[in-house]
Amino acid sequence: MIDSTRYPRLSRIDAPSDLRQFDESELPAIADELRAYLIESVGKSGGHFGAGLGVIELTTVLHYLYDTPHDRVVWDVGHQTYPHKILTGRRDRIHTVKQKDGVAPFPKREESEYDTFGVGHSSTSISAALGMAVANAQAGNDRRVVAVIGDGAMTAGMAYEALNHAGGMEPEPDVLVILNDNRMSISEAVGGLTKMLGRATGSRTLNALREGGKKLLGDKNNPTAKFVRRWEEHWKGMFVPSTLFEEMGFHYTGPIDGHDVKALVETLKTLKGLKGPQLLHVITTKGKGYELAEGDQIGYHAVSPFDPDKGLVAKGGAKKPTYTDVFGDWLCDMAAADPLLLGITPAMREGSGLVRFSKEYPARYFDTAIAEQHAVTLAAGMACEGAKPVVAIYSTFLQRAYDQLVHDVAVQKLDVLFAIDRGGVVGPDGATHAGNLDLSFLRCVPNLVLMAPADENECRQMLTTGFRFEGPAAVRYPRGSGPGVAVDTTLDVLPIGKAELRKRGARVALLAFGAIVPAAEQVAAELGLTLVNMRFVRPLDRALLLELSQTHEGFVTLEDNVVAGGAGSGVAELLNAEGVTLPMLHLGLPDAFQHHASREDLLTEAGLDAAGIREAVLRRWPHVRGGSANLQAAAAG
Amino acid sequence: MIDSTRYPRLSRIDAPSDLRQFDESELPAIADELRAYLIESVGKSGGHFGAGLGVIELTTVLHYLYDTPHDRVVWDVGHQTYPHKILTGRRDRIHTVKQKDGVAPFPKREESEYDTFGVGHSSTSISAALGMAVANAQAGNDRRVVAVIGDGAMTAGMAYEALNHAGGMEPEPDVLVILNDNRMSISEAVGGLTKMLGRATGSRTLNALREGGKKLLGDKNNPTAKFVRRWEEHWKGMFVPSTLFEEMGFHYTGPIDGHDVKALVETLKTLKGLKGPQLLHVITTKGKGYELAEGDQIGYHAVSPFDPDKGLVAKGGAKKPTYTDVFGDWLCDMAAADPLLLGITPAMREGSGLVRFSKEYPARYFDTAIAEQHAVTLAAGMACEGAKPVVAIYSTFLQRAYDQLVHDVAVQKLDVLFAIDRGGVVGPDGATHAGNLDLSFLRCVPNLVLMAPADENECRQMLTTGFRFEGPAAVRYPRGSGPGVAVDTTLDVLPIGKAELRKRGARVALLAFGAIVPAAEQVAAELGLTLVNMRFVRPLDRALLLELSQTHEGFVTLEDNVVAGGAGSGVAELLNAEGVTLPMLHLGLPDAFQHHASREDLLTEAGLDAAGIREAVLRRWPHVRGGSANLQAAAAG
Repeated sequence: MIDSTRYPRLSRIDAPSDLRQFDESELPAIADELRAYLIESVGKSGGHFGAGLGVIELTTVLHYLYDTPHDRVVWDVGHQTYPHKILTGRRDRIHTVKQKDGVAPFPKREESEYDTFGVGHSSTSISAALGMAVANAQAGNDRRVVAVIGDGAMTAGMAYEALNHAGGMEPEPDVLVILNDNRMSISEAVGGLTKMLGRATGSRTLNALREGGKKLLGDKNNPTAKFVRRWEEHWKGMFVPSTLFEEMGFHYTGPIDGHDVKALVETLKTLKGLKGPQLLHVITTKGKGYELAEGDQIGYHAVSPFDPDKGLVAKGGAKKPTYTDVFGDWLCDMAAADPLLLGITPAMREGSGLVRFSKEYPARYFDTAIAEQHAVTLAAGMACEGAKPVVAIYSTFLQRAYDQLVHDVAVQKLDVLFAIDRGGVVGPDGATHAGNLDLSFLRCVPNLVLMAPADENECRQMLTTGFRFEGPAAVRYPRGSGPGVAVDTTLDVLPIGKAELRKRGARVALLAFGAIVPAAEQVAAELGLTLVNMRFVRPLDRALLLELSQTHEGFVTLEDNVVAGGAGSGVAELLNAEGVTLPMLHLGLPDAFQHHASREDLLTEAGLDAAGIREAVLRRWPHVRGGSANLQAAAAG
Repeated sequence: MIDSTRYPRLSRIDAPSDLRQFDESELPAIADELRAYLIESVGKSGGHFGAGLGVIELTTVLHYLYDTPHDRVVWDVGHQTYPHKILTGRRDRIHTVKQKDGVAPFPKREESEYDTFGVGHSSTSISAALGMAVANAQAGNDRRVVAVIGDGAMTAGMAYEALNHAGGMEPEPDVLVILNDNRMSISEAVGGLTKMLGRATGSRTLNALREGGKKLLGDKNNPTAKFVRRWEEHWKGMFVPSTLFEEMGFHYTGPIDGHDVKALVETLKTLKGLKGPQLLHVITTKGKGYELAEGDQIGYHAVSPFDPDKGLVAKGGAKKPTYTDVFGDWLCDMAAADPLLLGITPAMREGSGLVRFSKEYPARYFDTAIAEQHAVTLAAGMACEGAKPVVAIYSTFLQRAYDQLVHDVAVQKLDVLFAIDRGGVVGPDGATHAGNLDLSFLRCVPNLVLMAPADENECRQMLTTGFRFEGPAAVRYPRGSGPGVAVDTTLDVLPIGKAELRKRGARVALLAFGAIVPAAEQVAAELGLTLVNMRFVRPLDRALLLELSQTHEGFVTLEDNVVAGGAGSGVAELLNAEGVTLPMLHLGLPDAFQHHASREDLLTEAGLDAAGIREAVLRRWPHVRGGSANLQAAAAG
C-alpha cells in the first residue's frame, strides 16, 4: 500500500475523478509525488523508466482536463504509460508490472477501461485515434480523442499515413495529436524529421529566449543550442516549425515545455475547445527529474530493479552471452572479413546488438529510424548493387516489413540476410513483443532459407551460412541466452538443408527446431529416443526425414512457434508429399497470443520444457516409457 | 515488327545507346513516335495505359541523358514502364505484355538489365534507390541513381520513411527523386499531401502564368486552377512548394512541365551535376496525348484491348458478376441494414468494388490513400468505439498491413471484417499481385475467423457471417468471376466452423477450400469420392474431419494457396493433434512465386484444374479409378 505520509495527494487518487477534485494549483505537487512514486516503484520492479518520467506532467494534466475514460487518450508505444496506470486505478499494483498476472507493461484494453488501445509497436496511435474520432462523429458521441506520440514514433511511415489521411479528410476530424518531442527514440534519433524538429525547436526556443522566456536550452553545447546557432546561420529564414504539420493539414501549436504544468493546462484548455485536426508540440526530457536517467537516456529506457539512490550498477561477474551478443560479435567479425557487408537496424541499435558495429564501422552502419518497411527495401536496393546487407530486426517488428521481405527481397532472390532476434517466446513484454508467428509467416515464402539455431555457436554458424548463401536467408534466434555453448571465432558455414542427427534412438524420433533442442535432447536421452536438431526450417532435410520415417514408428516435431503452419507442419507436408504415412505429434506454442510472464514460465505453460515434452510423448506413445519394451506388442496395443 | 515508315526514329532504337545517337532537337519527335507506338500496341494487347502516356517525355529524356543501364533508374509501381520497356530492347515484344511468356507487366530484373528493381506494389522506389546509392558510394562506383515516383505512391508511409532516412543521412546520399505529380493515384488522390501538392503546384504555376510562362493550367475550372484561386485567398502567404521536401532534407526543384522535353532536358542536365538528395517535381497528365484517356484517367488506368480510334467500348450483354461485384453489392446492402458499418479502402475504390458504396454512403466511406498500415489500424480504432469497419483490400496488399492485422486487430479481438480480394491465383499481373500466401500468413493468427467461398452466393453469406461475428474475421475470394451461382439478396449467416459435405462418396475424401471446390466436385463425381466444401480455413470443422477420417482411407486437401502452411496443412495438424494417422495428399500452389499468365493457365500448371486433380488423386490412389473395386485388395496393394 502507498505511504500516505510521503504521498499525501497521490494516495487519495484511485481514479482520475479523484484527481479532478484537486485544485489546479496542486497539480505540480501531484506531479512531483507521481514522479517520486514512479522512481520508487520501478526501482523495485524494473521496467520502462525514462519515457514515463518524461510525461509525468502531461499525464497528470491530460487526466485532469479531459474526462477520461469517456474522452479517449491513446498513448503511442506505451513505454510511457506507467504514470497513466498509476493514476487510473493501478497505483498499488504497478510494482507487479511485467510479472506473470501482474500489470501489463503496455496499455491493454482488457486490463482497464482507461487503456483505450493496446500498443507495443510504435506509431499506431494517430491511426487508432483517428478511427475513434471518426466512429464517434458517426455515432454522434461528443468524446474528445487525443493521441500522444513521440518524435521517434513519428519517423514511422504509418504515423505519416495517418497524418496525411487526417489532414486531408472532409469533414475535418476532431482529433488532437500531441507530439512528445524528446529528441530520442530508443536508439539515437535519426532522419530528416529529427533534423527538422531540431530546427523547429530551435527557432521557437530562440524567440522564447529573446523574450526572456523559458530556458529550455540549458547548456550551450547541447544539440538544441547547436541547432539554434545553425538555424541562425542558415541562408533561408523560412524554418517555421509548424510547416510540416500545417502542410499536412493540421493546426499546429507549440512548442511548449512539457514539464511546465501551467503552460500545459493553459494550452490544453484552449485546444480542448478547438475543432479539426490539432497538433500540439511538447518538448520533454526523457528521464526528467531523475538525474541519472536524464544523463543516460538510452541506459534508463528500460531497467532491471535498482536502488534509486545509487542508480543502475554494472553487474559483476562473467555474464553468459545472449544470442544478441553472439550476433553483435559475429557482425563485427564478418564485417572485418567481408567489406561488402552493410548492417541495417530500424532504430534498435542497442536491442539488436549493433552498438559495437556502429562504432567500428560507422560508414557501414545504417539506422533507418522506426521504419521497418524502408529498412528491408533499402537492403534490397543495396543487394542489387552487389553489397551484402544484414538486416537486424526483432521477429515481431519484421511483421511490419512482411510485404517488403516477400516482394522486394524474396521474389527477386536478392542476397539479404535477416538476423531475427526475439523469435519464439519473448516473455515479460507480452503479446505485442512475442515472436511466436515468424516460422509460419516465413515458411511459406519461396526462395527463403530459414534457420533456427540450437545453441550460441550454431547461431554464429548459421549467420555465416546465411550471409554466404547467395539469396535471401534468415536466422531466427530467441531472446536472452542459450544453453551456454562456447562460440568458435571462426566463420564456418553449415551445409544448406542438412539437419544434425544428434542421437539415434528407437521407436520415436524427436525433431526439434531451434531453442527447443536442449529440452528435447534431455527427453530423448531419458526415453532412448532419436533426436534430430533440425537446423533448417526450410529447406527441410528430406533425405534424413525419409530415412527416419522408415525406421521409426512416429515423429514428434518441437518448436517455439505456433503449431499452425509452423516448422513441424512442414515436416508433415513433406511426408504427405512423399506418400509416407506416419503418426506425428506437433509440439509448439498454442493458438493464442502470449500473455506477459517470464520466458521460462511461458515455455512451461506451453509444455515445451523437458517435463512437458516427456509427458506429451508418453501420452501418445505410452510404451516408450519402458525403454526396451517389445515394439510389436506396444504397437499392437 | 515495327513499321519504319510510321516510326522512322523509334524503329532505329533498339537500346538507349541508339537513342543517345540522335540530336537533342529530335527528342520531341521521338517522344511523339513513342506515344503513338504505345497507343497502338496497348490497343492491341491491353494493359496499363494512362500512366505510361504520362511519362513518355520523361522516359525519353532520362534514357537520353543518363547512361542507362550503368546509371540506375528505379520506376515506382511500374504501371508506367511500358515506354521504358519499348526504349530498352522490348519494342517488338511489348504487344505480348501480361501474356504467358510475354513481356512482364512490371519491371523485372530477370527480364532486362534496364529493369533495376522489380516493382508492382507502390512506394518502394526511394528505398531501393537509396540502397543502390549507398552501396555504390561504398564501392566507389560513380553510377547515378534516380527514382521516379508518383504523387499517389508518395502517400504511402514507406516513401516517407525513405525520404526521412535519405534526408537525414550523413554523408548525404547522391540520389535524385523525381516526383511525377499527376494528382492521380489509381483512385482519386486523397489526403493532406495531395492538398499540399495542389497548393504547391498552384503557387508556382501562378508565378509562371504571371511571367507569361507555360500554360499548365488550361481550363479555369480544372482542379489546379481552383487550387490557385484557393491559394490566393489563403490568409497565409507561406505556401512554398518546396517546404515539405526541404524540411525532410531534400533539395527541391520544380515544378516543371513533364511534357516539355526542353524543360526536362535543361533541368535534368543541371540536376545530374548536383550532389546530395535532390527532388524534382514534375507535373504530368495521366493519359497525355490520347484525349479519351486524359478525360477518363481512372477508366484508362488499365485497359482491355481496344481500337484507339474508337476508345473503350462498354461490353454488351449480361456480364457474369465478379466476386468484386458481389462484395460491392453486399457492402451497400449491409450498410443499409446496419448503420454501424464503415467501409475502408487503401486507394483501391475501383478495384475493390467500392464505387457504388462511396456514392451511396459518402460519409461512411474512407479512402486512406495508399496506406495499408494505417487503413487497418484506423479500422481497429473505429471498432474500439463500437463501429463495424470493413476493410476491402487485395490479398497482396494486405501483406503491407500484416503487423497491424496481428497486433491492432487480432490481439485485441476487435470486430473488423477483412474483405480480401484477389486471393490465390491472380494471373497476368505476375508475382507481385499474386495472392498465393494469404491462407498461410493468416492461418497462424490467433482469434481470426478465416473463410474462403466456393461460389458467389457463399461469398455473400460469408461476408455477412464475418460481419456479424463479433471479432476479427476475413473472407478471401479470388479475382474475376466464380462458377456463376445466383446470389441471394438476403443477409444470411453460415454457422462458424462448419463445412459443407456436398457429396458422400467412398474411399477418399476431397477437402476443397474456396475457388477449387468446383473442379474438385467434378473429380469427386467422376471417381465416386467424397467431396467437402470446407468453407472455413479456421476454425476447421473438427467433428466432420474426425468422422470422415474413420470412414475414408485418405484425405486430399485442395486450395489455391501455397501448400506450405496452407489450409490443407491445417487439416494435417488437426488429425495429428487428435492422434489420427491417415494418408493425405495436399494439392495447392507450388513453393514458387507466380509468373504472369492467365489465371486458368496458372491453375492448370499447378495441377489445380479437374484434370490435374484427377491425375494427382489417381497417382496416389490408383484403385479409385475402378469406382467399385475391392477396398481391402486395393489397400493391401
